[in-house]
Amino acid sequence: MYVIAVYDVNEKRVAKMLKLCRRYLNWIQNSVFEGEISEVKLKEMVIEAEGIMDVTTDSLILFKSRNSRWLDKQIVGQEKMSTDNFL
Amino acid sequence: MYVIAVYDVNEKRVAKMLKLCRRYLNWIQNSVFEGEISEVKLKEMVIEAEGIMDVTTDSLILFKSRNSRWLDKQIVGQEKMSTDNFL
Repeated sequence: MYVIAVYDVNEKRVAKMLKLCRRYLNWIQNSVFEGEISEVKLKEMVIEAEGIMDVTTDSLILFKSRNSRWLDKQIVGQEKMSTDNFL
Repeated sequence: MYVIAVYDVNEKRVAKMLKLCRRYLNWIQNSVFEGEISEVKLKEMVIEAEGIMDVTTDSLILFKSRNSRWLDKQIVGQEKMSTDNFL
């Protein structure tokens, strides 16, 4: 499964969320991550994220696609991630 | 075409980028937008974005999918967008 994850958490929790997401996905920009991940691993990540987040104020959005070929990525301006994260 | 757009621009240009993206897509979180858009309209948006951005430091990433049914969205924590933007 191919996943794009974007979070918006209070700055107190940003470092922890960054560290967590980096363990499961590839960082591509600011608070945006992407990568191939199994459903089980993603569930694990969500449970860990819920442990870090204040779910009444913080937010994590996951876009899931069965196949990364169904998604086309275009970068305008500066490319911040390493090239091996390209689709 | 279904598009997810995430930008990372210098704070001096955030207000302009926000305004631009809102004109074409639905705001869902922080600097994240999504929506149905034609290829022509998207090109128009990218040209306008390039006019706002400093392309040597700022970044705009577009994930494009032919069909929104190929993408499944999961929200953890606070849902910040209005419900009519749901997939």
